[in-house]
Amino acid sequence: VRREDHFVEKLRALLPPSERVLVGPGDDAAVIAEGPGALVVTTDLMVESVDFLPEEQAEMIGRRALAINLSDLAAMGSRPEFFLLSIAFRRERGEEFPLAVARGALSRAEPFGARLVGGDLSSGSATVVSIALWGRAPGAPLTRSGARPGDLLFLSGWPGRAAAGLRLVRRLAAFASQGSPPTPRFVGLSPEEERELLDAHRDPEPRVALGLFLGQEGIAHAAIDVSDGLGVDAGRLARASGVRAVLERERIPVCRAVASFADVEAVDAVDWILAGGDDYELLFAAPPETAAKLESARPEWGTRVTRVGRVEEGSGAVLRGRHGDRDVSDLGYDHLERGTPNHE
Amino acid sequence: VRREDHFVEKLRALLPPSERVLVGPGDDAAVIAEGPGALVVTTDLMVESVDFLPEEQAEMIGRRALAINLSDLAAMGSRPEFFLLSIAFRRERGEEFPLAVARGALSRAEPFGARLVGGDLSSGSATVVSIALWGRAPGAPLTRSGARPGDLLFLSGWPGRAAAGLRLVRRLAAFASQGSPPTPRFVGLSPEEERELLDAHRDPEPRVALGLFLGQEGIAHAAIDVSDGLGVDAGRLARASGVRAVLERERIPVCRAVASFADVEAVDAVDWILAGGDDYELLFAAPPETAAKLESARPEWGTRVTRVGRVEEGSGAVLRGRHGDRDVSDLGYDHLERGTPNHE
Repeated sequence: VRREDHFVEKLRALLPPSERVLVGPGDDAAVIAEGPGALVVTTDLMVESVDFLPEEQAEMIGRRALAINLSDLAAMGSRPEFFLLSIAFRRERGEEFPLAVARGALSRAEPFGARLVGGDLSSGSATVVSIALWGRAPGAPLTRSGARPGDLLFLSGWPGRAAAGLRLVRRLAAFASQGSPPTPRFVGLSPEEERELLDAHRDPEPRVALGLFLGQEGIAHAAIDVSDGLGVDAGRLARASGVRAVLERERIPVCRAVASFADVEAVDAVDWILAGGDDYELLFAAPPETAAKLESARPEWGTRVTRVGRVEEGSGAVLRGRHGDRDVSDLGYDHLERGTPNHE
Repeated sequence: VRREDHFVEKLRALLPPSERVLVGPGDDAAVIAEGPGALVVTTDLMVESVDFLPEEQAEMIGRRALAINLSDLAAMGSRPEFFLLSIAFRRERGEEFPLAVARGALSRAEPFGARLVGGDLSSGSATVVSIALWGRAPGAPLTRSGARPGDLLFLSGWPGRAAAGLRLVRRLAAFASQGSPPTPRFVGLSPEEERELLDAHRDPEPRVALGLFLGQEGIAHAAIDVSDGLGVDAGRLARASGVRAVLERERIPVCRAVASFADVEAVDAVDWILAGGDDYELLFAAPPETAAKLESARPEWGTRVTRVGRVEEGSGAVLRGRHGDRDVSDLGYDHLERGTPNHE
């Protein structure tokens, strides 16, 4: 069990039971009985030098902070409605800085009709952005805990792009500081592919429409957003459901840009995907008869869905390859550990 | 207009209208139409070295973070129900640190039945605690904007104690660093009075029961919690209501501990109260016929209520004394300005 999951377990032990708390700490969002139905509520902190570089543009920080919260609601099959935005920042940056963060968050919220209703400002020695977002699930809220043996595992989009993008940002910064010529920098990586990786890191696309589809249709048994790495997040889904998640190596979708940059960096693209994090794709379990429906992506999802594995009896998350199964449930970012792959 | 209020005005200009947002940014909490009635939602950040000293105990940080959010809901006449708690902290402090922050918040929440339902953890270079808290108003939510000429102004408790307590903390730290004997330190300040001031600063008591009484009875026209100083917060209530707030100097309640420590420090206790902040008392406007009911405090309020002034036509907040009126609407803490009284 990872340190942050261990923390959540200890925290849960402190909480008195409450009939109205349908899902408490430990899933992508909380679910609270409220009127006819339930509120689905999430919150995420973004911290300078941990989640973004000090030189990141304010609007991009705001867009990303909202996106990661939207992704949590998507993983619960829910429609975002309202959010709070709090910002700590160095006073010398002036009022324009938090306004630009807010503009970024608003630009991310607008397509989904989510409204900013309040927040707080404080000075501080580093930028910290905290968002709380809530909405409602049109169907039963989708949790991490309903996967059953026999289900298939599906994943949206092209994982690993965000981790590759972050590494590319660092490489470009290092080149720039050495006065290298700006282009071409990476053999085998086109300017479009560079852009694709950088965008995936800086401005990830939350899978709100796909999450709502899953929630409305009721076809997924369990879902999680892949924020810390496919390995650890598959392990979390497995643990919450009391099953084993089997990721099939040859099914993991690797886009050309990730494959090319993995070559440049001399790493295994699949390992990158397992440990990478920050992708904000949805991993979900659904019965085999839904596969055709899911693999024929709808335009409004904005991405494809790939079958990446299956749910079996047992525990943990494994990568199944030609040489057998490898435990991958500990690959990925732990917010309480040091020296994890993408967040030095 | 203060810089942080200016920020809120600029932010509001960015927000599209929404029928469900009954009160948006700029009051103590937001009010959102939700089911039969409305949700009342607030959030506050607490930042190390800004809102608390680096050596503050984790549990106390959690208690205070929850208290200031509870105070916002109290000022809206609302009952707290659920909260989210996010914590950024230095990893070397270990898991015990955020757990102690959570225990502190839970200990503050428990008497009011407010439940922790989620949150987020991150590493960071300084401690930042972010809470989002929501509940419902049993009556119509109380805002800052309903005060009318002819209303009286009332204030709970003994303002100025928190500001005095913070100064006392600093004095004690300075004495300790000089190797002075621990007691007696301040002529005219008993150990009980020292404790009273330190407690008011470290562990303020949100006026939840009083706020609920005001909300349920519908006798207050407007309310605000005094978080930044009686001067600036009276000015905010006046501005939101389109009236003038008149604080009568001889009515401002000055407890013995504040008076004694103000003597020691050679400051005017009333100026301290106007500019002090962090008191989390409720300032509210109510018609004259309610005065008897309000001034005969109920035990469950945990404090007294004092009539401190009146609402007149006009604008701004003034202190009315023997020598006329003095504008006090700019006295207090501005989170975007430097060198404000109690938050160096």
